[in-house]
Amino acid sequence: MFHLSPSRLPVLTGTALALLLAAPASAQTIETSAGPLTATVIAEGLEHPWAMGFLPDGRMLVTERSGQLRVVGQDGEVGAPIEGVPEVVARGQGGLLDVALAPDFAESGRIYLSFSEAGEGGHGTAVLSARLALEGDSGSLSEQNVIFRMNKFTGTDRHYGSRIVIGQDGNLFVTLGERGEAKRAQDMADLAGAVVRIAPDGSIPADNPKLEGWAAELWSKGHRNPQGATLRQSDGALFTVEHGARGGDEINMPRAGRNYGWPVITYGVDYSGAPIGEGTEQEGLEQPLHYWDPSISPSGLTFYDAELIEGWQGDLITGGLSGQVMVRLDMEGDTVVGEEPLFEGQLGRIRDVRVGPDGAIYALTDEGNGQVIRVAPEGV
Amino acid sequence: MFHLSPSRLPVLTGTALALLLAAPASAQTIETSAGPLTATVIAEGLEHPWAMGFLPDGRMLVTERSGQLRVVGQDGEVGAPIEGVPEVVARGQGGLLDVALAPDFAESGRIYLSFSEAGEGGHGTAVLSARLALEGDSGSLSEQNVIFRMNKFTGTDRHYGSRIVIGQDGNLFVTLGERGEAKRAQDMADLAGAVVRIAPDGSIPADNPKLEGWAAELWSKGHRNPQGATLRQSDGALFTVEHGARGGDEINMPRAGRNYGWPVITYGVDYSGAPIGEGTEQEGLEQPLHYWDPSISPSGLTFYDAELIEGWQGDLITGGLSGQVMVRLDMEGDTVVGEEPLFEGQLGRIRDVRVGPDGAIYALTDEGNGQVIRVAPEGV
Repeated sequence: MFHLSPSRLPVLTGTALALLLAAPASAQTIETSAGPLTATVIAEGLEHPWAMGFLPDGRMLVTERSGQLRVVGQDGEVGAPIEGVPEVVARGQGGLLDVALAPDFAESGRIYLSFSEAGEGGHGTAVLSARLALEGDSGSLSEQNVIFRMNKFTGTDRHYGSRIVIGQDGNLFVTLGERGEAKRAQDMADLAGAVVRIAPDGSIPADNPKLEGWAAELWSKGHRNPQGATLRQSDGALFTVEHGARGGDEINMPRAGRNYGWPVITYGVDYSGAPIGEGTEQEGLEQPLHYWDPSISPSGLTFYDAELIEGWQGDLITGGLSGQVMVRLDMEGDTVVGEEPLFEGQLGRIRDVRVGPDGAIYALTDEGNGQVIRVAPEGV
Repeated sequence: MFHLSPSRLPVLTGTALALLLAAPASAQTIETSAGPLTATVIAEGLEHPWAMGFLPDGRMLVTERSGQLRVVGQDGEVGAPIEGVPEVVARGQGGLLDVALAPDFAESGRIYLSFSEAGEGGHGTAVLSARLALEGDSGSLSEQNVIFRMNKFTGTDRHYGSRIVIGQDGNLFVTLGERGEAKRAQDMADLAGAVVRIAPDGSIPADNPKLEGWAAELWSKGHRNPQGATLRQSDGALFTVEHGARGGDEINMPRAGRNYGWPVITYGVDYSGAPIGEGTEQEGLEQPLHYWDPSISPSGLTFYDAELIEGWQGDLITGGLSGQVMVRLDMEGDTVVGEEPLFEGQLGRIRDVRVGPDGAIYALTDEGNGQVIRVAPEGV
């Protein structure tokens, strides 16, 4: 098992301290296309929170990359670590990553967690299914079962991807980075750099694309590091955001059996400035719906389908890590027709965005003293 | 689509003629460890029959490699080709291959057919699920669905494997040859040279071994060309026979996640006499339960679990193509403790062996004028 290296602790402490000193006010209001919106810090003190999922009572489950799953209340109360979470490789970009609640969570207590798992040859992304029992803001997992793991473990600690989205038919989409090993995204026997589709019990649906030479789990390939994913409720279509190389972050609409081109085609260039691959377009490789140059490092993705914020229905919201921004993408059908940066430089590195049952947008900041932030019309 | 090349027809006709001239008498009796057994030809005129499956009424479904599925009665009546069978690549060792009836066939009419299917890059082994409706000895298939295909198609016409065995949990084992491309048996992303395990609807069970680097469909690897497979009813264990190189035919007991070694280890040598691989044993590679030197080209495999032939209960029966023999393997637990050749040189090339509902052993001869032969105690 890998744990946070002691040698890195002083650095993290320093970063956390610096962030505390530069901490945003607990509420900030900006003008937006939907009128004044206020971002309010509702909880803090989280250790690199990565994902959140709303419980039926409006509280949320939040993962911390270092390995804890906690209940966070709307009142800012942060529960003790939930027991029974698997050992994670909390190193580099790895750790405890996404959380998703089963559609029948109220009855089943079933949740899914993605995480970086140690195995022969290194580590890879895995998905755990477990039953959560809560008592107050404490709880424990039982019936833990690893329902998915990558088929190749390697030593890098980058590009795990790992968002979990539950499709309309109940099957799970899981996004997987190419682990910093770009060629793997074009190796169709390798699950890295892909979206996979699995059943809740870990079996593989009969109607997966299974193109010639493709591993049975695969839904789409040629992704670099997709760390945001969401479903369009009207038709069940999957949308993802992925980190590109410099200037190559993308929004995609991964369809069954399609290849999204990384690293053969990309709008990004190497961090050295050197070109990558064979250009930006090629027959048989899909184009993104949108790309960012300069990069924002998008993470977290959700459609805004609630009523609270008027005029944004049907639009996508994503977070930016390096961009320190929340972004609204104005959608018309499958087309991105506009982009509105929100709270740029005001909230920190945004790791996840979700819409709460109250219609507000919630964000997590990926910091040593990570926050849960609620965005809603001023005074609501 | 590929069809039997016209240029080969005279050869086949010649072979068929020669065999007709040397045809066995319609009944032959030999002395065996279980007393006198008689082999009776109950049907003939079949074109390279490959597999048979017993219907609830005691008749059988028989595949012909050239692409027909027919009902054959105990009275020798051969029905017209059943309609709705898929197009097959009837070339070399390819064509319409195995047939298996679902455990609930009496209600569902569900059958499975394996066959060589054309696709991009050549052909490969595939499995069709369909519903059979019979009227007399005619019938038709509906609800045809290809539930499995190999993930790589190539141009050879050899080593399709392709026996289908339904496990005790209802999942299907399918044996797959390495298509005459030996290295593929050790490529764990390739389904060639393997036993795969799939659900009846083509989904992939969650509890498949899925070792690191293994395709999700895989049950076991390192097989050359397994063309016989059966289940031990007492514990659900799978047994297979496979064609080796010269002197290397094997019986195996394929277990989840195990590697049976071809072509790294083998008891066979190249047809030229040159050694193959790295010897006969290696750490991490499984040994066969038994091997044949000289080869018999085993095809078809069944446990004898009926009452009719006394003393053979729990033993394995296989057929031999080049060996022109039926073989009883005396089993004690998982060990082959003896071997009894039966009807050697008397029946022709034996492609399949099954136990009928009457307790007799049935065999198919893989000839242009193929026969169904019933083996039972003299006078029964």
